[in-house]
Amino acid sequence: MTKSALQIARAAYQPKLPKALATGAVKVVEGAPTQSVADQEAIKALFPNTYGMPLITFEAGEAAQLPAMNVGVILSGGQAPGGHNVISGLFDGIKKLNLANKLYGFILGPGGLVDHNYKELTADIIDEYRNTGGFDIIGSGRTKLEKVEQFEKGYEIIKQLGIKALVIIGGDDSNTNACVLAEYYAAKNYGVQVIGCPKTIDGDLKNDMIETSFGFDTACKTYAEVIGNIQRDCNSARKYWHFIKLMGRSASHIALECALQVQPNVCIVSEEVEAKDMSLDDVVTYIAKVVADRAAQGNNFGTVLIPEGLIEFIPAMKRLIAELNDFLAANAEEFAGVEKSQQREYIIGKLTPENSAIYASLPEGVARQLTLDRDPHGNVQVSLIETEKLLSEMVATKLAAWKKEGKYNGKFAAQHHFFGYEGRCAAPSNFDADYCYSLGYTASMLIANGKTGYMSSVRNTTAPAAEWIAGGVPITMMMNMERRHGEMKPVIQKALVKLDGAPFKAFAAQRDHWALNTDYVYPGPIQYFGPTEVCDQPTKTLQLEQAK
Amino acid sequence: MTKSALQIARAAYQPKLPKALATGAVKVVEGAPTQSVADQEAIKALFPNTYGMPLITFEAGEAAQLPAMNVGVILSGGQAPGGHNVISGLFDGIKKLNLANKLYGFILGPGGLVDHNYKELTADIIDEYRNTGGFDIIGSGRTKLEKVEQFEKGYEIIKQLGIKALVIIGGDDSNTNACVLAEYYAAKNYGVQVIGCPKTIDGDLKNDMIETSFGFDTACKTYAEVIGNIQRDCNSARKYWHFIKLMGRSASHIALECALQVQPNVCIVSEEVEAKDMSLDDVVTYIAKVVADRAAQGNNFGTVLIPEGLIEFIPAMKRLIAELNDFLAANAEEFAGVEKSQQREYIIGKLTPENSAIYASLPEGVARQLTLDRDPHGNVQVSLIETEKLLSEMVATKLAAWKKEGKYNGKFAAQHHFFGYEGRCAAPSNFDADYCYSLGYTASMLIANGKTGYMSSVRNTTAPAAEWIAGGVPITMMMNMERRHGEMKPVIQKALVKLDGAPFKAFAAQRDHWALNTDYVYPGPIQYFGPTEVCDQPTKTLQLEQAK
Repeated sequence: MTKSALQIARAAYQPKLPKALATGAVKVVEGAPTQSVADQEAIKALFPNTYGMPLITFEAGEAAQLPAMNVGVILSGGQAPGGHNVISGLFDGIKKLNLANKLYGFILGPGGLVDHNYKELTADIIDEYRNTGGFDIIGSGRTKLEKVEQFEKGYEIIKQLGIKALVIIGGDDSNTNACVLAEYYAAKNYGVQVIGCPKTIDGDLKNDMIETSFGFDTACKTYAEVIGNIQRDCNSARKYWHFIKLMGRSASHIALECALQVQPNVCIVSEEVEAKDMSLDDVVTYIAKVVADRAAQGNNFGTVLIPEGLIEFIPAMKRLIAELNDFLAANAEEFAGVEKSQQREYIIGKLTPENSAIYASLPEGVARQLTLDRDPHGNVQVSLIETEKLLSEMVATKLAAWKKEGKYNGKFAAQHHFFGYEGRCAAPSNFDADYCYSLGYTASMLIANGKTGYMSSVRNTTAPAAEWIAGGVPITMMMNMERRHGEMKPVIQKALVKLDGAPFKAFAAQRDHWALNTDYVYPGPIQYFGPTEVCDQPTKTLQLEQAK
Repeated sequence: MTKSALQIARAAYQPKLPKALATGAVKVVEGAPTQSVADQEAIKALFPNTYGMPLITFEAGEAAQLPAMNVGVILSGGQAPGGHNVISGLFDGIKKLNLANKLYGFILGPGGLVDHNYKELTADIIDEYRNTGGFDIIGSGRTKLEKVEQFEKGYEIIKQLGIKALVIIGGDDSNTNACVLAEYYAAKNYGVQVIGCPKTIDGDLKNDMIETSFGFDTACKTYAEVIGNIQRDCNSARKYWHFIKLMGRSASHIALECALQVQPNVCIVSEEVEAKDMSLDDVVTYIAKVVADRAAQGNNFGTVLIPEGLIEFIPAMKRLIAELNDFLAANAEEFAGVEKSQQREYIIGKLTPENSAIYASLPEGVARQLTLDRDPHGNVQVSLIETEKLLSEMVATKLAAWKKEGKYNGKFAAQHHFFGYEGRCAAPSNFDADYCYSLGYTASMLIANGKTGYMSSVRNTTAPAAEWIAGGVPITMMMNMERRHGEMKPVIQKALVKLDGAPFKAFAAQRDHWALNTDYVYPGPIQYFGPTEVCDQPTKTLQLEQAK
């Protein structure tokens, strides 16, 4: 590996740990038994061995040499900054317990467990990856661990390698599956523990016990860096509106956090759009209004942040897409026979009036996408829709109409951006480097203490790292029952943006001011070596949520 | 202005200056008379007052109080990191000469001079912008100063404000115009000096005397940061080819510098494509070959860097576009009558065989763009072509053909990116902060010494800043005659990538290795506070060019 100067310098960083973990051994403090956030009876029935376990916090204990044990680790799903530090924390934790302990990494995600594709992670490998971004130490993958054959196939290699515990680093679904696996191995008395770690840049895996998922901090700061740069350009050239789409799946946490960091003119929050039952036209009108109000002050420029999942949160769009899916499935042959240039009119004539009107209002490119670009199941591929272009085109159309009516007199030219891959593998910020290392180290302590079905938990994260509280949360505690592919399933509740939460309220209180005024903030690139107020601040979201 | 923590911390940075400038007054050392790089007689005839002046270098002199003078400054053209530091260096320089000196900034570019739109830049304004990115202190614009009426209009406000000298911060064209203005004011004996400063992220304003244009360093490092992050993601997920287009206008300096920093699997260099008379199919075949070779090793992922100006450097594409422009201009009416769905076939039937074949090979979206999206003069808008998507679509088509022939057996899925606005207003790296401040300070010394028609010059830039050599270069020295809009004009020679230059040769020597192996480098974000090997390195381009 050819290394950059920063990589070399950054390798020497020693992540900070909570006090309780600093001695390398811990005393377990058990809380009261827990229950799931909802559907207690159903969850309890599905997880007889891992339901109701107590919350755990660690206090500093006396270092003790435990019998040797081997541990396996899996990276599951999309990349998030800090994954390598979870692994190095886990490695250092188990080595502190007993130098003979071994760590095995399964290759390219959960599939590596099923396919028996693994490698031992030795000290020299681990040292190459400390404080680096990416999941490339063992790769990641999206295979879902949910079938008994997979569990049994995994158990074969677990037995063969003498693995006492598996650590699964993943998002809400992966942690749900980690718990199902923990329950299965417990029920079978295989003596294999399973521990989860909360990973996702999307920030949607959090709750009373998990303050934040790792990677959110670094990814948001990286996006905020480039958005800030664009805003400075926007404010210098004063001639473009920049429409910026941001990753984050369904939840708008990333867009909201970036908005709090950069103070854009507009940020759409999907959860609010849904709660207010806004139509696509409502969203477009809102943006166009800001454009027109700024134009009235001579400012024909601005920035708009758009969460990736927006389209599916617009109730009317959801209904349109549902009807389109049903209609095209039922009339595939007839539709295929329609002349390309007639397809739009054909569809408009077939839909219910409400959906027909919305469909007719869409720019041609998007309308085509909705009927042509379909996934193997015949469904519209919503994630392929370039929402940033869709919105700017519709805003342009609306402004043109307002211009004719004399309600708008400005210039409107747009630039488009989509940020996602730029931030998922950034080198972790000090926060994520410390948080991830602590999560991994905590996982090793949960293992040493015989726990299974727990998620590694590090709390009090807006305090200095020494004061962080390490422990474990029973995964069942975060579950409820939800309909998935027509079946009721136990799943960890996904955390969407709460409209009564402090981050959204802080945003909502300021957005009208940001809309009209140009009060951009330019956060600049993540710093690793400077003053603590520059290098060590958690996200605005976390600061606002944890503020007493 | 709401400020980020980094902005606040960075404001305290004191840019480093060449030794000769440190005392605040300089001794002028004049070299031999100069001549233009080509067309000496023609240039001399056009610039009788500013031709043949000597090169100037500064040595440390004794501080002296000069009579008070006022200076004007203009930001011209696209943003580049460090512009605010040129202005603060200029401000500090003239204030050191005499505290009564005043600096006026013309608003939104050269248009501000013509329209008498300006503001005095006082110490408290300057202090708000030290070491920040962007041009927002006074804004920038693209008005070209080339007409006598503009010069005279400018002179009115110059007289009114008692301005002794104008500093024009811009790219090759803006500096050419600065020199025309200098010549005009000299010929008229107006007693107004004009000094240029070399700005452009594109890196195409450089020559024997100007080692680099400011902003190139920071912009490339910002792009290299996000490309590095994408590469780390690419190498973790192992399932996508990322096609990444990079700003840079005609020249490929940015793409080449980024390639040297991140070691991608493919980087296309427009100047090489042109020199080798490569067709679009040649470029596509080259990329597809790398994809196939990597697939043969089980690596169905990779990165491709594409310079913004590529299309216009493919001789065959240039010919196609020229014929399309001519044909559609001559047959606009007939073409307008052709059914949309028949337009492609219509065009194919009308072009010469060579161009017809190329046109037929283009993906539908691009073909449509070439005939429909035309500028007000009826010409194809090449800059709107999404080259990154064009190439990936054509690579996919070629791979599908190879698959049928049994020559390729892999998976190909692509992601697309375009980086430009992300880097033009980044906060300047230490290099750009120092370089720009020195350029501005040098400009003040050129003014104090009565010079006009000079470009501020700071050389020896791979040495520590104290050893940098400050001085001035007659702008006429960089000029030659070129055809512009049908007329021969004196212009500063644009510096394209030299295929026999050290940066390209270093790239060419390694690219086959980078293509097949995954030897990505992850530069990470620009650091301002860390160890010098992380924070203070100039670009690879500069290091290679200046290596003895």
